[in-house]
Amino acid sequence: MESNTIFLPIIMAIIGLAFMLVKAMWVKKQDAGNEKMQFISKNIKEGALAFLNAEYRLLLIFVIIAAIALGVIAFFVPTTHWLIIIAFVFGAFFSALAGNIGMRIATESNVRTTQAARTSLPQALKVSFSGGTVMGLGVAGLAVLGLSLFFFLFTKLFLIGEGSFYNEMTMVLEALAGFSLGAESIALFARVGGGIYTKAADVGADLVGKVEAGIPEDDPRNPATIADNVGDNVGDVAGMGADLFGSYVATVLASMVLGNYIIKEMADANGGFTDAFGGMGPILLPIVIAGVGIIASIIGTLFVRISSNDAREAQVQRALNTGNWLAIILTVIACYFLIRWMLPESIHMKFFNEGYKEVANINVFFATIIGLAVGGLISFFTEYYTGLGKKPVLNIVQNSSTGAATNIIAGLATGMKSTFSSVLLFAGAIWGSYALAGFYGVAIAASAMMATTAMQLAIDAFGPIADNAGGVAEMSELPEEVRGRTDILDSVGNTTAAVGKGFAIASAALTALALFAAYVTFTGIDGINIFKADVLAALFIGGMVPVIFSALAMQSVGKAAMEMVKEVRRQFKEIPGIMEGTGKPDYGRCVDISTKAALREMILPGAIAILSPVLIGFVMGPEALGSYMAGVAVSGVVWAIFQNNAGGAWDNAKKSFEAGVEIDGKMTYKGSDAHKAAVTGDTVGDPFKDTSGPSMNILIKLTCLVGLVIAPILGGHTSEIAMLQEEIRKEVDVTMSVGENEKTEAVITISEIVDGKTVKNEVLIEGTPEEIEQKVREIKEE
Amino acid sequence: MESNTIFLPIIMAIIGLAFMLVKAMWVKKQDAGNEKMQFISKNIKEGALAFLNAEYRLLLIFVIIAAIALGVIAFFVPTTHWLIIIAFVFGAFFSALAGNIGMRIATESNVRTTQAARTSLPQALKVSFSGGTVMGLGVAGLAVLGLSLFFFLFTKLFLIGEGSFYNEMTMVLEALAGFSLGAESIALFARVGGGIYTKAADVGADLVGKVEAGIPEDDPRNPATIADNVGDNVGDVAGMGADLFGSYVATVLASMVLGNYIIKEMADANGGFTDAFGGMGPILLPIVIAGVGIIASIIGTLFVRISSNDAREAQVQRALNTGNWLAIILTVIACYFLIRWMLPESIHMKFFNEGYKEVANINVFFATIIGLAVGGLISFFTEYYTGLGKKPVLNIVQNSSTGAATNIIAGLATGMKSTFSSVLLFAGAIWGSYALAGFYGVAIAASAMMATTAMQLAIDAFGPIADNAGGVAEMSELPEEVRGRTDILDSVGNTTAAVGKGFAIASAALTALALFAAYVTFTGIDGINIFKADVLAALFIGGMVPVIFSALAMQSVGKAAMEMVKEVRRQFKEIPGIMEGTGKPDYGRCVDISTKAALREMILPGAIAILSPVLIGFVMGPEALGSYMAGVAVSGVVWAIFQNNAGGAWDNAKKSFEAGVEIDGKMTYKGSDAHKAAVTGDTVGDPFKDTSGPSMNILIKLTCLVGLVIAPILGGHTSEIAMLQEEIRKEVDVTMSVGENEKTEAVITISEIVDGKTVKNEVLIEGTPEEIEQKVREIKEE
Repeated sequence: MESNTIFLPIIMAIIGLAFMLVKAMWVKKQDAGNEKMQFISKNIKEGALAFLNAEYRLLLIFVIIAAIALGVIAFFVPTTHWLIIIAFVFGAFFSALAGNIGMRIATESNVRTTQAARTSLPQALKVSFSGGTVMGLGVAGLAVLGLSLFFFLFTKLFLIGEGSFYNEMTMVLEALAGFSLGAESIALFARVGGGIYTKAADVGADLVGKVEAGIPEDDPRNPATIADNVGDNVGDVAGMGADLFGSYVATVLASMVLGNYIIKEMADANGGFTDAFGGMGPILLPIVIAGVGIIASIIGTLFVRISSNDAREAQVQRALNTGNWLAIILTVIACYFLIRWMLPESIHMKFFNEGYKEVANINVFFATIIGLAVGGLISFFTEYYTGLGKKPVLNIVQNSSTGAATNIIAGLATGMKSTFSSVLLFAGAIWGSYALAGFYGVAIAASAMMATTAMQLAIDAFGPIADNAGGVAEMSELPEEVRGRTDILDSVGNTTAAVGKGFAIASAALTALALFAAYVTFTGIDGINIFKADVLAALFIGGMVPVIFSALAMQSVGKAAMEMVKEVRRQFKEIPGIMEGTGKPDYGRCVDISTKAALREMILPGAIAILSPVLIGFVMGPEALGSYMAGVAVSGVVWAIFQNNAGGAWDNAKKSFEAGVEIDGKMTYKGSDAHKAAVTGDTVGDPFKDTSGPSMNILIKLTCLVGLVIAPILGGHTSEIAMLQEEIRKEVDVTMSVGENEKTEAVITISEIVDGKTVKNEVLIEGTPEEIEQKVREIKEE
Repeated sequence: MESNTIFLPIIMAIIGLAFMLVKAMWVKKQDAGNEKMQFISKNIKEGALAFLNAEYRLLLIFVIIAAIALGVIAFFVPTTHWLIIIAFVFGAFFSALAGNIGMRIATESNVRTTQAARTSLPQALKVSFSGGTVMGLGVAGLAVLGLSLFFFLFTKLFLIGEGSFYNEMTMVLEALAGFSLGAESIALFARVGGGIYTKAADVGADLVGKVEAGIPEDDPRNPATIADNVGDNVGDVAGMGADLFGSYVATVLASMVLGNYIIKEMADANGGFTDAFGGMGPILLPIVIAGVGIIASIIGTLFVRISSNDAREAQVQRALNTGNWLAIILTVIACYFLIRWMLPESIHMKFFNEGYKEVANINVFFATIIGLAVGGLISFFTEYYTGLGKKPVLNIVQNSSTGAATNIIAGLATGMKSTFSSVLLFAGAIWGSYALAGFYGVAIAASAMMATTAMQLAIDAFGPIADNAGGVAEMSELPEEVRGRTDILDSVGNTTAAVGKGFAIASAALTALALFAAYVTFTGIDGINIFKADVLAALFIGGMVPVIFSALAMQSVGKAAMEMVKEVRRQFKEIPGIMEGTGKPDYGRCVDISTKAALREMILPGAIAILSPVLIGFVMGPEALGSYMAGVAVSGVVWAIFQNNAGGAWDNAKKSFEAGVEIDGKMTYKGSDAHKAAVTGDTVGDPFKDTSGPSMNILIKLTCLVGLVIAPILGGHTSEIAMLQEEIRKEVDVTMSVGENEKTEAVITISEIVDGKTVKNEVLIEGTPEEIEQKVREIKEE
């Protein structure tokens, strides 16, 4: 059972990381501008790192507690090795490292983008997109590297041929689940904590600065202004990065689990399974696809460039699209050949109710197309419901003319309506990819969608970098034309941000599905029957948890913002000369408050996310836990779309007033009553789209991952007994005949399948028919 | 198979209706006050009846279309008789009649309550509560009468002993499902249409009247003011009445279906089932409980009275509570004896995974206690989250000081958090009552909760009557003390309204569960396994539909309100002397607009509610439809609680300012900025709590009912083939021995269960063991 194929993704991950280093060094070599620019950028960078460092301290405590809990699991469940702890720690570390790289490069790129924009738009795009590329490749490279190294290590350790391949591989994958859990835990901190951080700083800075003190946004006299800018990086860069890192790893892991399961089914049917990949082609496929996606993304990034200094948004957007589509098309082509190469021509797969079917490997390829289509379409839907100039946003604008209440109602209704197309899309994708290739098809569809994560994140992280670049230009009082250039990039960045959010939701939804399917195979339950009352009860509870989670996240923003308001008020009162610009505000204090509040406030929702599945699992059993997962996924997806799109639509409705909108035949601008109503809507939408909405992704995935990790304890499917029994399946056949001495002779054939091999034993007995019957009964009951 | 027990509920329903008539005549005999009072009251009454008449016209079209659809079902499904059409029409008619009675008496009682309040508070309570009692008894009496008469008729027609009892009774219950579907269809019109009506009129009247023209609320110069008052009756009286009528009927029906199923299980196990109730005790039990609940409610209403003219809110509330608790306690006692009397001492019941269990009938009684506890506790939770002076509302008040945005966020968060306790309660109730007595226990729990519907509705309808009485007092310029007395009643009415909404949600949730369980038995599927991809996809779609439905309902309010605004503006401009009080505004036109808009706007959501399950069922199959139902129920319950409680909390946060609230140590009153922010919140909350929130109840129940009605087509379980095969179950047993002539003799025993009776056949054959084996195989395959 040897295969060198695992070195393929390892090499591709290393190529990705090497390319990342080259890009990062290139960015750092760029001119960082004048002193003032560097001062501002330095403050943002320090604040961002301050948050990260504070986060790491809390993380350390969390990792220790979680490691102990995993140790307990490893102690009680023979198939779960203590190495899961190491995998967990590395998962957390790699994810944190990726976030750290992303934050550092983002805070380096912003000022260099500003500086580049002083002379050239193409160069400004190049710098900002390079920053994004570093982030994207860091996430994808570390994810694939970590996963494949641990997989390699664990197969060396556990795949020793003492038990059945399936059970040994299950040990490998259970330990690997620790890596995924570690990664997702960091995502919880980064996304939820980051979400609370960014909005607390934002609201706090605005309430005292803009409203009470009457100073403009990003004014250096406002003590919270650095915290506000840090927040953009914390939420949009590190949060999104950790979210996708988690999805990426979890999707690949779930696909591997399901790959192992279909290998088992084929082995059972044919008395063993072999291929050119050490008998694990279906397990290796998802991680190889991920590796290939990195290379495709690198090639894609090379095509993101514009040549003219007079380019507008459309050209920049086209450049990004070219790169993105190229990466996707290359991935599709690669998927075709990989699937043809790595999977058996026909896969023997079990479908519920329909029994076993032979699935051609081309079907798995079609499933990857579905996955890529979901990624594309969800972005399209998101853009429709939240885009400037589109009907839904225009409708909110119109409703702003009759006040804040009608604006709010219109925004809520828009968010609610937007769930329709996206949910239908998911439902269709589940159905379609399952029909093509079972749950393995669903998981591979998700893997394919996530394959170009590096490219997606590059485009995504480019937005906040350009946004910050604009901020630096403003604060450093650079000429108008510089701001004009960064504005073009920023505007494109706003669109890509909305698209990125859609992609993140889709990835979370598909990941959850894949994990859900993997969970069922891990516990060994037959399915999840919601016609059982306890299972139905768990579905109800699961449907409620995302709502509570959202409520807590929203409330946390309020509380943290209030603390910020008090601190800013205090500084304005106590620091002499602060308003005149002679006294230096204490930025660090505000950063500290936001940081502490964010981390403190995320403990309760975090605990709910992690402990609820554990509780449900142990109190109500594995089937109820599966139902709970489904409830969280369904409700979480709906609430994620609702909150993200409502928030996005409110935001753009407010922005519409900047260029002026026509209401009842009159042009209406900033400062009008309608605009004020739109500002109220945007304020409501802020925690929706930046805190509670995106945190749904984490909740959904974390719930399913926790379920997957505790599955072996609940199911007993891979418990010690199962290991000892080693999949014994026995068939007893009796042929009778009347022999000499008037006695009936019987040949009893006992066929047992042990470790995928069929062993036959024949026993010849004679006696009265009654005696024979008795004997046969005894053998069967053995 | 004869039983006279069915006459019990018929008689009790007739007693209820007779008592209703007495009460109604007593109310009408009361003094209706002076001319001005009568004029106002007449206008409200005419407007309300105008809405009803317009509704009936639309209804007629709907009933014809639905009847044709049902006819098609009856044509293709042999077990569904065309009489389902008649049952459907009568279900619709009875529900409409109950609503009509309620609206008439409510619009008669309001002015008489005002008149009574001129002299005596106890008398005012008596009049208003009598009005409520008429409504409550009308609903309960007609529901029980309709159900039991049709049940009687259908058993006479279909229970003829030609097929098995189970299959014939299934025909009875399938036809009876038509009655329930008819009732719920009216609820759709009344609740959703009524919800749109009342808010369109409210918002329209306020926007032009209060804001633009600067005239006070309820000012007779405002053309929309009558529409506004009509709306209160349409939404709170007719809407709530139809909602509970639907729940009541559906719950009893579902319990009967499940009762039939447990009879079948017992018959299969024991070769038949007999009891003192024609072999249908478990089927009759729920309807007898409903009948007894009417009598208990009547007795309860007799104890709702106060003696002192100086009584305050607390005394009035205590009087209502006394009556309510008395009715509940009487029902509990009656349930105990009924269950002991009508159910076999031990019920043979199948539990998923656990196989058959013997359930003592006392367990069913404990399930009824769970049902009653759910009703009580949900009201308690609702009051906590929406009550004046409670922590959640105070928190919203505090958040109003920083503007409308923070008020909105706090309100949304409150509504979201409120789902926690209620959903856990439902989950616990499902689990508990199922553990006690299977899904029959769940259904009986729901039936017990609904048994005191008459009393619940009496308390519920009393609120809007008292509210209207206050309005009449204000508009007729009666002395302060009159308004003071009606205010006491109105204030109590606000509390009971919140409690009533909680009860309505709980009833919808439990009804949906019972229907869901009944659905599974009707289709004959094994269960609903969400680990199948299509079933999971349907769960996602189901989770999304309530959100879309809510969005459409909210949008409809906006659109209809805009039309109203335009009409009021037009009248102000075109009718001379209207503002001076010399020109008479065209009230009817506004009533007409609200009516037409409400009915037009509810077609799309209504169509979604009815057609989606049909589509899912036919395209994706019965198991997916079951999953869709579960998705709608889970998501619908969460969104119902969220929207109702957020709306209620915003409303009371606004009301808190009337008495003044302390914010940051300062007393703040009406007219402050904080109050304005609270008004914005209340405006957002209005469609939440009066339109989209309550309509969730209907959506949930209607989805499950439509599923139940089309179940026979989907499942094929009661199809022609099944009727012919008549539940044949065969067991083959072989005993071999060596007989004379050295041949092996074998006795083959074939046991078949036909129509619940076990038939045994023995076949003696001889031959070589091979020949015997061959023969046995042939018999088994037959």
